[in-house]
Amino acid sequence: MKITLEYIGEGDTVIDATAGNGHDTLLLAEAAGESGKVIAFDIQETAIEHTKALLQEHGMLDRVKLVKDSHEHLEKYLDKGSRPSAVIFNLGYLPTGDKSITTKADTTISSIVTASKLIKLGGIITLVLYSGHEEGKQEKERILDLLGQFSPREFHVAYTSMINQPNNPPEIVWITRKK
Amino acid sequence: MKITLEYIGEGDTVIDATAGNGHDTLLLAEAAGESGKVIAFDIQETAIEHTKALLQEHGMLDRVKLVKDSHEHLEKYLDKGSRPSAVIFNLGYLPTGDKSITTKADTTISSIVTASKLIKLGGIITLVLYSGHEEGKQEKERILDLLGQFSPREFHVAYTSMINQPNNPPEIVWITRKK
Repeated sequence: MKITLEYIGEGDTVIDATAGNGHDTLLLAEAAGESGKVIAFDIQETAIEHTKALLQEHGMLDRVKLVKDSHEHLEKYLDKGSRPSAVIFNLGYLPTGDKSITTKADTTISSIVTASKLIKLGGIITLVLYSGHEEGKQEKERILDLLGQFSPREFHVAYTSMINQPNNPPEIVWITRKK
Repeated sequence: MKITLEYIGEGDTVIDATAGNGHDTLLLAEAAGESGKVIAFDIQETAIEHTKALLQEHGMLDRVKLVKDSHEHLEKYLDKGSRPSAVIFNLGYLPTGDKSITTKADTTISSIVTASKLIKLGGIITLVLYSGHEEGKQEKERILDLLGQFSPREFHVAYTSMINQPNNPPEIVWITRKK
């Protein structure tokens, strides 16, 4: 997350496409500052509740718009003309929730494409991929396939994997907009 | 290089295993500070001369020990008991030199193993891999194979590639010592 946070300044609009238990959302809210705005998405009510409680505990709720909807519709919730400086997708399932409810390749891919059109010049999209379960494996393959075709004139796409760790550790992709 | 420099503090010992034209050596010398020490290796006289000239120009020569030898012998030039905080290998050929003189998989691999034993706890080894030429392609494959077997208890090994860039862009590996 350290690299992602370097792309966020006071007053920025930032999107957490997968609120989960709110840990990323909290870091993004702190980075965006009092005048900033985070829009955090999750399709699960428990995730929205956990995120809300965590933000309240840290006095950050007023900076965050919590949306119980799929990140596939992220554009709908953005103020017109607003250009996020960062969008983060922490994929897979809710660590403390029902492991059969996971992000899906189709919706993840369409929202990555949307996010790539919306982020500001110099903005960053961060993906955390989990390939330890079947849906996650397919999601990763399709995402890497998609990103391999992103225009090198418009985007840097850096894919990082921990090559000596067993059991499918998380892998990270940073997409930064050059043009 | 930004990530590597975060691992270097004032007074540290640092190794540039491939001095080349001195650009990395200069950054390492600045990061190690006045009380620090950089040992920079290259097998080519032109590289040693270019690096020396650049360091002199920036008043950094006194912090750097220039060694015209293969990084395979890096241990020989380290003060006894000295634990480098960072070792960098910028592989391939000298950009302005004879492109047939490149780093070689055998010597690179043996010096990476040596470096992994010498770096301090929390230290970093940075590899910049170039697979656009045949020797570089084999070097990369053998290095990734080696590092894939590094103990996950002792090392983090993060391999980063730019998956949307054509023509074999440089790839980076960061090896950090956990234990």
